[in-house]
Amino acid sequence: MHGSVGTVRTQSLDLAEPLRLDSGTTLAPVRIAYETYGTQVPAKDNVILVCHALSGDAHAAGWSDDPTAPTTVDGVGAAERGRSGLGWWDGMIGPGKAFDTDRYFVVCTNLIGSCRGSTGPGSIDPATGKPYGAAFPVLTVGDMVRAQRAFLHQLGIETLLAVSGGSLGGQQALEWAIAYPDAVRAIVPIASTARLGTQGVAWNAIARNAITSDPDWQGGAYYGTGRSPTAGIKVARMVGHITYLSAQALREKFGRRFQRGGDEPRYELAAPDFEVESYLRYQAEAFAARFDANAYLYISRALTYFDLARTYGRGSLERALARVRAATLLLSFSSDWLYPPRDSEEIAAALRANGGDVRHAIIQADYGHDSFLLEEAEMTREITAFLDALSGDRVGEKLA
Amino acid sequence: MHGSVGTVRTQSLDLAEPLRLDSGTTLAPVRIAYETYGTQVPAKDNVILVCHALSGDAHAAGWSDDPTAPTTVDGVGAAERGRSGLGWWDGMIGPGKAFDTDRYFVVCTNLIGSCRGSTGPGSIDPATGKPYGAAFPVLTVGDMVRAQRAFLHQLGIETLLAVSGGSLGGQQALEWAIAYPDAVRAIVPIASTARLGTQGVAWNAIARNAITSDPDWQGGAYYGTGRSPTAGIKVARMVGHITYLSAQALREKFGRRFQRGGDEPRYELAAPDFEVESYLRYQAEAFAARFDANAYLYISRALTYFDLARTYGRGSLERALARVRAATLLLSFSSDWLYPPRDSEEIAAALRANGGDVRHAIIQADYGHDSFLLEEAEMTREITAFLDALSGDRVGEKLA
Repeated sequence: MHGSVGTVRTQSLDLAEPLRLDSGTTLAPVRIAYETYGTQVPAKDNVILVCHALSGDAHAAGWSDDPTAPTTVDGVGAAERGRSGLGWWDGMIGPGKAFDTDRYFVVCTNLIGSCRGSTGPGSIDPATGKPYGAAFPVLTVGDMVRAQRAFLHQLGIETLLAVSGGSLGGQQALEWAIAYPDAVRAIVPIASTARLGTQGVAWNAIARNAITSDPDWQGGAYYGTGRSPTAGIKVARMVGHITYLSAQALREKFGRRFQRGGDEPRYELAAPDFEVESYLRYQAEAFAARFDANAYLYISRALTYFDLARTYGRGSLERALARVRAATLLLSFSSDWLYPPRDSEEIAAALRANGGDVRHAIIQADYGHDSFLLEEAEMTREITAFLDALSGDRVGEKLA
Repeated sequence: MHGSVGTVRTQSLDLAEPLRLDSGTTLAPVRIAYETYGTQVPAKDNVILVCHALSGDAHAAGWSDDPTAPTTVDGVGAAERGRSGLGWWDGMIGPGKAFDTDRYFVVCTNLIGSCRGSTGPGSIDPATGKPYGAAFPVLTVGDMVRAQRAFLHQLGIETLLAVSGGSLGGQQALEWAIAYPDAVRAIVPIASTARLGTQGVAWNAIARNAITSDPDWQGGAYYGTGRSPTAGIKVARMVGHITYLSAQALREKFGRRFQRGGDEPRYELAAPDFEVESYLRYQAEAFAARFDANAYLYISRALTYFDLARTYGRGSLERALARVRAATLLLSFSSDWLYPPRDSEEIAAALRANGGDVRHAIIQADYGHDSFLLEEAEMTREITAFLDALSGDRVGEKLA
């Protein structure tokens, strides 16, 4: 029952029109990298858009056809499972899985501003013939969703059965439901928020500071110089990584063990001594090797600017969500301290106040924010029931 | 009743003997910077040692006689109070205060390894005639306390009525009670721990990484080069700063307000836009201007190595604390997520299991770890009652 979508290749498509941005400028050309899984039914009513988080990409499921592709599922989960080349949400997308490719046509695009195939700060700026660097326009989640909408339009897809994703992916799902209320039948924002809390804003600012204060950042124009802000993005990743895990998960996994065993410290000043220290370095190295520092800056900025109440509700979340027509399933995790369950409950309460169709399930999980990549069994139970109720027998009948 | 100790000058004293270190080496010469407040009674039974945390110094109370001295009380509290040149625990030390200088003779020393007058990595290495840099030996809290013991011995002080401090200062108090059980009548460890949790180890590792991966660190030998790892220590401080505050305190103070007001983002990539972002930069600048990056590394390392159960109890905290004879008052703060109340309760339970005289009070405070610098009223109530019960009428009668 729980099969794989097999080997997949990331494709790309160029938008026909310049993309209007919230900052008042436009972006052109715009290339969108994407993958699809399953089959679109003639009625075109079985399309599910899956949205990735800060460091993800279009490769959400199956095995990459590029054997050199780095895994995009990082974090403790990836290290434990050793799934190199496997999509970042492979446990959720495939035959018989939560996003069942026997029934649904699942689409995932790489975000604009990223570095994994879609147009971003590493792309060529047509005005100069050189990579944008920091001349790339600052983006919002609204811009990212507008790009997805234009992309789907070119694919002939005007309505979505559902939009789902975790973290920043959930922010995109919420943005879809507000910006295009008639185009989305349902959303499943997971471990997400209507606006990042102050501490989350601070963590992101620190991570960006680590990058921009690295002299190798060179004001963002490091492409082709032979130097890039590797030290900075490593520190940024370390900060992010710790915020994605609960204190309990860290304690249970590493405790205070020394990396070379034994009971005695080695009196190291700069080198790692505790296991958690070498683990952090390993994770940071792997991330620096696969992710562009400027892309990190742009995406981090977009997710901190995201604020539904400010953008759509003149300060009121209830007012912002008034136009939502999508049935909503919110999932959050008990140990997530970065996007805590309280944030999802706030969204649920505002939707309910508007008479919306909403369910919020808090999943008991010890892992912290990264649970949205790991707690597949519980998420699958909730999402399957939600999509079944939504689509009944009509949508995406077994295609086989 | 609540007076000031007035204007004070930091003094210094050179230890007569080389200092034996836990790593197996010795350190010489060793200079100790210190301040004292109040008067020692002839019976010498009214001495209280106050111990500072990572970034503190010997200037714990009163006004510095050096008008250029930077305030050592940083954090939100300092910014709000604007107390430049005032000691870092001035609210706790003085006539009529918790550590009442009308009754007690209060001593505070700058830690070895620091950069505020005592011997540290910026001091001259007699072997080379140049500053130690990373050639300075890695220290433990045990070493720091051994230096304090030798210093007090030279001052003619062999026993202490009490040892107190917050955070790393509390670790020193605990170390005193185990290492010199006959020399300490009481300890008051505040917002402290018998060993830092895994997440705390990780935060410290990230902060040290930010410094050592800054090319201006130059392997620690940056003194006199005209360059120092300013960018790195700023990021380190930002990380530390956020861990010292509760998420709630950050939210209440800054929310998601933009620094220039208004409702619209300015679409900044590298520059601050949210108020909390510019606040972090301001704090980091001030810290980088007053604190040496190598000293940060050494002290951070010492506090992460600190582990009473490992060092003294073959893995058992109860066994480690078996030799403690000091009456113990533990204070912790409900919102402290770095040194949580649970850590203090663990110490209290182990002391009780040994039949010790112990009280643990969890103070309801919203501020997080930094509460030990701020919650003066509650701390004063607890400490005054504890010291009164301890000293009765005999110790440090009103000297006036």
